Amino acid sequence: MISDKVNIEKKFLKFSEFWSPRVIAEMNDYQFKIAKIKGGFIWHKHDDTDEAFIVIEGTMKIQFKEKEITLNQGELYVVPKGIEHKPIAMETCKIMLIEPKGVKNTGDLTHELSAENDIWV
Amino acid sequence: MISDKVNIEKKFLKFSEFWSPRVIAEMNDYQFKIAKIKGGFIWHKHDDTDEAFIVIEGTMKIQFKEKEITLNQGELYVVPKGIEHKPIAMETCKIMLIEPKGVKNTGDLTHELSAENDIWV
Repeated sequence: MISDKVNIEKKFLKFSEFWSPRVIAEMNDYQFKIAKIKGGFIWHKHDDTDEAFIVIEGTMKIQFKEKEITLNQGELYVVPKGIEHKPIAMETCKIMLIEPKGVKNTGDLTHELSAENDIWV
Repeated sequence: MISDKVNIEKKFLKFSEFWSPRVIAEMNDYQFKIAKIKGGFIWHKHDDTDEAFIVIEGTMKIQFKEKEITLNQGELYVVPKGIEHKPIAMETCKIMLIEPKGVKNTGDLTHELSAENDIWV
């Protein structure tokens, strides 16, 4: 019942792929995932759920149709459900995502960037 | 619809009370809360939900009946639902909690350390 603790930074040492979220913990039917991102992702939305981003290292932007936000290390943002958004990172950025289990990274789209779910690291 | 980003460290500058969680963001029916902790909390459990702890600064321990874990900065732990636990910090520690809205900090107990919910910072 009592699992091990998770050192977030150490988990990032275990994979190198970009835009390929890895699960590091579960809480009820939610998952904590980490990802390395670089470059621009695709415009997408999640019709059924909000999605939380926390920047662990580096800087990312999230573009929305009407504005853009910049997230630096230690900053948290919750993208509301149904809102089109496009994550971007000029340089490698390490992020943590918190969202319900089963959420597709490309939302309502199938794309070459669509990642398999439930890959633990 | 598009809210502001949250700088976790800056939110900690806005309050000083120990064991008094402040909400910094919501995701669906879950909340991100931050707390300053020092000393020992009480033994308690949450019968209906897991509870995620992330240490933002400092070191804390979580005692269980059969073991104890130490969490340092950047470490994540999910306490399973129904499991008795007791958070402790020898020195001031800054933590983030993620759990469903409405969870009482003292679980199934009412105690002088029971904190009011839904206080945003």
